Amino acid sequence: MKIDLNADIGEGFGRWTVANDDALMKVISSANIACGFHAGDHLIMDRVVKAAKEQGVSIGAHPGLPDRMGFGRRNMVVSPEEMEAMLAYQIGALKGIAARHDMRVGHVSYHAAFGNMANADQDLADRLARVIAKIDPELVMLAMEGHPIDLAARKAGLRVRYLFLADRAYQSTGALVPRGEEGAVIHDLDKVKERVKNFLETGSVTTIDGKILPIKSRSILVHSDTAGSDKLAEAIATQVHAMGGRIAAADTE
Amino acid sequence: MKIDLNADIGEGFGRWTVANDDALMKVISSANIACGFHAGDHLIMDRVVKAAKEQGVSIGAHPGLPDRMGFGRRNMVVSPEEMEAMLAYQIGALKGIAARHDMRVGHVSYHAAFGNMANADQDLADRLARVIAKIDPELVMLAMEGHPIDLAARKAGLRVRYLFLADRAYQSTGALVPRGEEGAVIHDLDKVKERVKNFLETGSVTTIDGKILPIKSRSILVHSDTAGSDKLAEAIATQVHAMGGRIAAADTE
Amino acid sequence: MKIDLNADIGEGFGRWTVANDDALMKVISSANIACGFHAGDHLIMDRVVKAAKEQGVSIGAHPGLPDRMGFGRRNMVVSPEEMEAMLAYQIGALKGIAARHDMRVGHVSYHAAFGNMANADQDLADRLARVIAKIDPELVMLAMEGHPIDLAARKAGLRVRYLFLADRAYQSTGALVPRGEEGAVIHDLDKVKERVKNFLETGSVTTIDGKILPIKSRSILVHSDTAGSDKLAEAIATQVHAMGGRIAAADTE
Amino acid sequence: MKIDLNADIGEGFGRWTVANDDALMKVISSANIACGFHAGDHLIMDRVVKAAKEQGVSIGAHPGLPDRMGFGRRNMVVSPEEMEAMLAYQIGALKGIAARHDMRVGHVSYHAAFGNMANADQDLADRLARVIAKIDPELVMLAMEGHPIDLAARKAGLRVRYLFLADRAYQSTGALVPRGEEGAVIHDLDKVKERVKNFLETGSVTTIDGKILPIKSRSILVHSDTAGSDKLAEAIATQVHAMGGRIAAADTE
Repeated sequence: MKIDLNADIGEGFGRWTVANDDALMKVISSANIACGFHAGDHLIMDRVVKAAKEQGVSIGAHPGLPDRMGFGRRNMVVSPEEMEAMLAYQIGALKGIAARHDMRVGHVSYHAAFGNMANADQDLADRLARVIAKIDPELVMLAMEGHPIDLAARKAGLRVRYLFLADRAYQSTGALVPRGEEGAVIHDLDKVKERVKNFLETGSVTTIDGKILPIKSRSILVHSDTAGSDKLAEAIATQVHAMGGRIAAADTE
Repeated sequence: MKIDLNADIGEGFGRWTVANDDALMKVISSANIACGFHAGDHLIMDRVVKAAKEQGVSIGAHPGLPDRMGFGRRNMVVSPEEMEAMLAYQIGALKGIAARHDMRVGHVSYHAAFGNMANADQDLADRLARVIAKIDPELVMLAMEGHPIDLAARKAGLRVRYLFLADRAYQSTGALVPRGEEGAVIHDLDKVKERVKNFLETGSVTTIDGKILPIKSRSILVHSDTAGSDKLAEAIATQVHAMGGRIAAADTE
Repeated sequence: MKIDLNADIGEGFGRWTVANDDALMKVISSANIACGFHAGDHLIMDRVVKAAKEQGVSIGAHPGLPDRMGFGRRNMVVSPEEMEAMLAYQIGALKGIAARHDMRVGHVSYHAAFGNMANADQDLADRLARVIAKIDPELVMLAMEGHPIDLAARKAGLRVRYLFLADRAYQSTGALVPRGEEGAVIHDLDKVKERVKNFLETGSVTTIDGKILPIKSRSILVHSDTAGSDKLAEAIATQVHAMGGRIAAADTE
Repeated sequence: MKIDLNADIGEGFGRWTVANDDALMKVISSANIACGFHAGDHLIMDRVVKAAKEQGVSIGAHPGLPDRMGFGRRNMVVSPEEMEAMLAYQIGALKGIAARHDMRVGHVSYHAAFGNMANADQDLADRLARVIAKIDPELVMLAMEGHPIDLAARKAGLRVRYLFLADRAYQSTGALVPRGEEGAVIHDLDKVKERVKNFLETGSVTTIDGKILPIKSRSILVHSDTAGSDKLAEAIATQVHAMGGRIAAADTE
């Protein structure tokens, strides 16, 4: 059993940070790197790409909306053309940084409102997927199964890696409970570990209303800005190892 | 005689502009595109790359310091490592935008203080040239002959295209008269045309102190933010045509 | 007849500009000064406040959303509390700049989406008006008669100066035709002059669907980013003088 | 014995933070509030001003250079006029926020490079002090005794509150050991407490080269971005109380 453990990395700005990137990087198998719009800057990106190389971690782009103050969590009034340009700019910027460290950008994972906007508009999701395919058809899309981002990526000929979000509550429809609603984010590390154990054993999650929801995924996302995310990532890795598995950038489904 | 006519393009931000990019793009052969640090944004970049494609104009990156308010004209206290990361980020970002329009980024031309800092520090210039070579060894560097940026590019194995700055006064050392000093920028279009004519006929320029300075160049830079820059570019093109030449992205020296 | 002629001033950023502020300032009686969020910066504000002092022009705050790239024209997902803080911050910032030039900030005029959001939500408009009254109860609100911003200002005990927007088309409801719709902005200077003449003579405007709409106002807003806005302002002033009136910061209604 | 305990507060941006402001605010007597240039934003300022009001903490402006990525720690190439405008803008902005909470801005404390540039140029320091005096002659300047900022404030007729920087090493000249140099910042809480105890008992500090330097001050600055700064502030308060003193916004010298 090979499990990809991924986390959003480099989501600080200047001297500000949100997570212990160095500690996380020692445990995860792939890093979704903020590209300077919602978070991150050229210097942070340079440092985390270098660290990823040293730790043997795969890297991907984590593009967001150009809204540092809102951390990319507020929808914006922007045209599809502008979203396309944002996406191309950010993936390109990371590829530029990666190139100078002989690293390859292997995947794309949308951040917060950028992803929410795509998931709320199949046409937008399609346009964005085509931008990615145009930049590099080998890029793998990270998505939740069956969501517009997944469908768009497949239509564009991209491979998709399905995510399990260990610290976010699911609705029985398969959608996440929106941030801001009661119980949306699971902060208790023990509960998160329990969910991961259950997911690894049964391939399912218990929804917020008590249903059993099958999750097709070999890739676990740890939200780096959950307090203690590095400890959580370690705990998940321990859990995977205990079950005879190993942590490695997953094959796509 | 083939002369490259190039201009800085896309140096607005949001609704702000500094030049008539559309008019310039109809006359020039290559565009140095601002990459979102000193000027430009993802949407402007997207539009000008598309316009360049339509007009058959070659495109290059015009990276600057991250200082929109100062238009990248103020030196900054930054480490060489940060300059390297800035450069890789910006070239990458333009390559991302270009990729979605099937365009190729062919050259690099440093903006204002970014270039001044490189020209004041050979080690920095060398580091930056190596970043460019790492991203794409086919990228052509735009530089003034014999300056640290030129030397660095050659050491890094890059080809160099030498510039003649039609609207800037030269010192007899070959250096430009610094902006801010009396006579540094030539605003009178007729004088600029006269300089171009003289340059094309004699391969030299008259310096601010009246010396004749040979200029090895087949590439004329029009500063787009000189008032009437589009008229100037047209006048230069007319001059080149009148002398039997044509405007095209120049071979490197 | 005393007519206030006002315009948005200082809506550039760094080296970028949108209007000929110097020329406008010679004609208008009051300036709505951008406060650094949608446009403007500390240096531009300092310069235009100084110029207003020299020209005897009254100054007011022109607060907007913190969105330079969108020029404050895109609605944002922000809480009422954040809007309050934005408003207090921007008025205060201008008062700080004004204080050092012994100038008094006399009025407030919301910019674009900031105003649209207030006009779409009476509770928000009320909160914002109370912020203004708390900062300085002598501040005069610029508004269109009967709109939520007008009502809110009156409830908060503020005086209101009613605006006539010379270059924007009106609906028969009294609302403006939204930007982006056909005919929303009148670019033809002659037509704008004709509207001003008619307004001064009859106190009314012809709506986009041909109705006669009475406009209670002694204050004409010239959109500074209409091309030729300085010429327009001059033409309006000439019109006012020809009718025996004079241009001066209006008494409130 | 009345000792003022002050700290830089609100030095985050959006979701980013550098210190536990809530915990600090329970212990300190005055807060130097970041004004949105090097750190802070309108929403954070609004929250910390409200919290200061609830905790009975005096507030002051902590203006910095407009450089979020560098946290205001990098000198900038800016004119004295621009520094003046920056200062007026930031003090004004905080006054705007404070006004809506019926709070009074009582003091000014320059941040990092903003202060370093003033201390390196008496003429600049003088200009800045005059800006403060123009905005409100009752504003108290926080400074180290005898430094250009102190002299400038006195010349401008401002009262000065002298600072003791508990966690920064002093040179025998009275200047701080520059950040970046060995031993410049004292991270060991026990050592900092020991220094405070010694300062309170003897009115002096031991310099980095072992000399005894008298410090005329009744105001201790806790750098909020030292790890554990809230614990440090508590320890200092405990120390002051144990010696029979109390923590309160100090009278000026």
